[in-house]
Amino acid sequence: MRKTIVGVMGPGDNATEQECEQAYQLGQLIAAQGWVLLTGGRNVGVMDAACRGAKAAGGLTVGILPTKTFEAVSDAVDIAIATDMGNARNNINVLSCAVVIACGMGMGTASEVALAIKNGKSVVLLTQDRSTVEFFNNIARDRIAWADSAEEAIAIAFSVISNQLLSF
Amino acid sequence: MRKTIVGVMGPGDNATEQECEQAYQLGQLIAAQGWVLLTGGRNVGVMDAACRGAKAAGGLTVGILPTKTFEAVSDAVDIAIATDMGNARNNINVLSCAVVIACGMGMGTASEVALAIKNGKSVVLLTQDRSTVEFFNNIARDRIAWADSAEEAIAIAFSVISNQLLSF
Amino acid sequence: MRKTIVGVMGPGDNATEQECEQAYQLGQLIAAQGWVLLTGGRNVGVMDAACRGAKAAGGLTVGILPTKTFEAVSDAVDIAIATDMGNARNNINVLSCAVVIACGMGMGTASEVALAIKNGKSVVLLTQDRSTVEFFNNIARDRIAWADSAEEAIAIAFSVISNQLLSF
Amino acid sequence: MRKTIVGVMGPGDNATEQECEQAYQLGQLIAAQGWVLLTGGRNVGVMDAACRGAKAAGGLTVGILPTKTFEAVSDAVDIAIATDMGNARNNINVLSCAVVIACGMGMGTASEVALAIKNGKSVVLLTQDRSTVEFFNNIARDRIAWADSAEEAIAIAFSVISNQLLSF
Repeated sequence: MRKTIVGVMGPGDNATEQECEQAYQLGQLIAAQGWVLLTGGRNVGVMDAACRGAKAAGGLTVGILPTKTFEAVSDAVDIAIATDMGNARNNINVLSCAVVIACGMGMGTASEVALAIKNGKSVVLLTQDRSTVEFFNNIARDRIAWADSAEEAIAIAFSVISNQLLSF
Repeated sequence: MRKTIVGVMGPGDNATEQECEQAYQLGQLIAAQGWVLLTGGRNVGVMDAACRGAKAAGGLTVGILPTKTFEAVSDAVDIAIATDMGNARNNINVLSCAVVIACGMGMGTASEVALAIKNGKSVVLLTQDRSTVEFFNNIARDRIAWADSAEEAIAIAFSVISNQLLSF
Repeated sequence: MRKTIVGVMGPGDNATEQECEQAYQLGQLIAAQGWVLLTGGRNVGVMDAACRGAKAAGGLTVGILPTKTFEAVSDAVDIAIATDMGNARNNINVLSCAVVIACGMGMGTASEVALAIKNGKSVVLLTQDRSTVEFFNNIARDRIAWADSAEEAIAIAFSVISNQLLSF
Repeated sequence: MRKTIVGVMGPGDNATEQECEQAYQLGQLIAAQGWVLLTGGRNVGVMDAACRGAKAAGGLTVGILPTKTFEAVSDAVDIAIATDMGNARNNINVLSCAVVIACGMGMGTASEVALAIKNGKSVVLLTQDRSTVEFFNNIARDRIAWADSAEEAIAIAFSVISNQLLSF
């Protein structure tokens, strides 16, 4: 009965237009799979775009907020969890997901990718940034997969969730 | 679009049969209102009974687990959030709810009631235990309401959520 | 080499003069035993008074702050730990202590006493309030001791720490 | 009265001999400055080595443990804080420090560096690994300084703490 949760992490205020477009697509594709989308829940950047995509496709969205209150929650979050834990909530973001997809990169996202790997989660990075690829490959090659598009990221997530892929 | 979340807190391993029956009813009634049920998510006691009640009535259930993994999650939890925070997750339980209903009393529940009040949340206690009533009335009379039945607890929650009741 | 930590918990803004006097004494006596004092670290009420007492007696003080920053830390805290976790930091307060002494009662303190017992810690309550005594005795008689004075609280803590008292 | 806390973060079980030697030196130099050393507190790798260095130089050491209990604490930790928060405690590690020094790199360390920068802290990286330098420079050049030796890391920390360096 428990639903499969897939996380989309990425920049908030500094997200690029392309990252938001990809996040929107990720949200749509996650909803189309029948998975629940989990994000950091705020009304900016990748978090917001992914939630809007999932809602447009009829999905269910969970937002894990860093705050105590709900003032900055995305309108596209169905279920808002208020942690009042600031950036420590990033650990909850990743622990609750079957797969973590990072779309773009920033300091919050880097912490989520690192925490996800540290916690033994499977991570898909949707980026072509060379220094990001090299850094994470150097310290955790076997826990990370790289994708060039939202479709490819979802295909990898599908493989992991279906247990067709036990490791990358 | 954000859904209203109502929490049901209560004993796990030490819950009585009556507490579990009331928790089941609370779950049913919360689902019937169209609210999301939030509990501590474990497969025992009040948490489990409330989730089963909500699912029997077609509702949606969220479980905030103290653990990193999902081994002890209730089968009746739809959306499981793994915090890996032990009892500190009790604070998240209460922060995410519009109203917190305590069904029975134990140390975990007492911490949740106290944290809920400390965080400014409205709390309904479903108990007739005299020492519990006196203790919480002595330190927080205006933040707590008392109910004798699941129906009464839900009626109070409805008033709070409808803003008909700004304080007790 | 690890130092013994004893916690003093109690009301902040609403602490009475008597509670602050007892907290000051507790701090002095904890320092005199060579124990480290741990409190919630803020510059008000029992937290502040206990820290000042410990420093007056040449002790070492640790403050576990709910905040991200150090603006509201007591001047008598030597080592300030910033959690940015709000009231969830109450769980850290109690986990780090060999014994938790509650001086006075309020919602934060009630959550700390409940969390301490839930986590298997030994708790000394320095209060004569009848409803507090009855409530906690009803749900956790064997984990709580009652003291009428700071001296008595410290004597009990000493017994626990010396393993002369395995349970109350 | 509040003491200046400097954190040393780095690999645990996978730390190299060179990283442990540098961590030991960092601990010594931090103690020599009169600063308190803060680490993740476990009895392995960089955490343990830094604490041993600080104790050898007469310093005071704080360990922020991921666990609820004290079984895996370093013998060289004076003040052990038990968080029971797993990797979410990494956020507390960095929030409590005036400066965070990373010695070596792994997934836990990467999360701490990222969280430190996200929280506005100053970070010194003691590494020459090219991919680490490029990755963090790309996303947070102005919050990170690079050091080739323990002495250089401490000199940078000194500048930050003395407010001679407001940004790198």
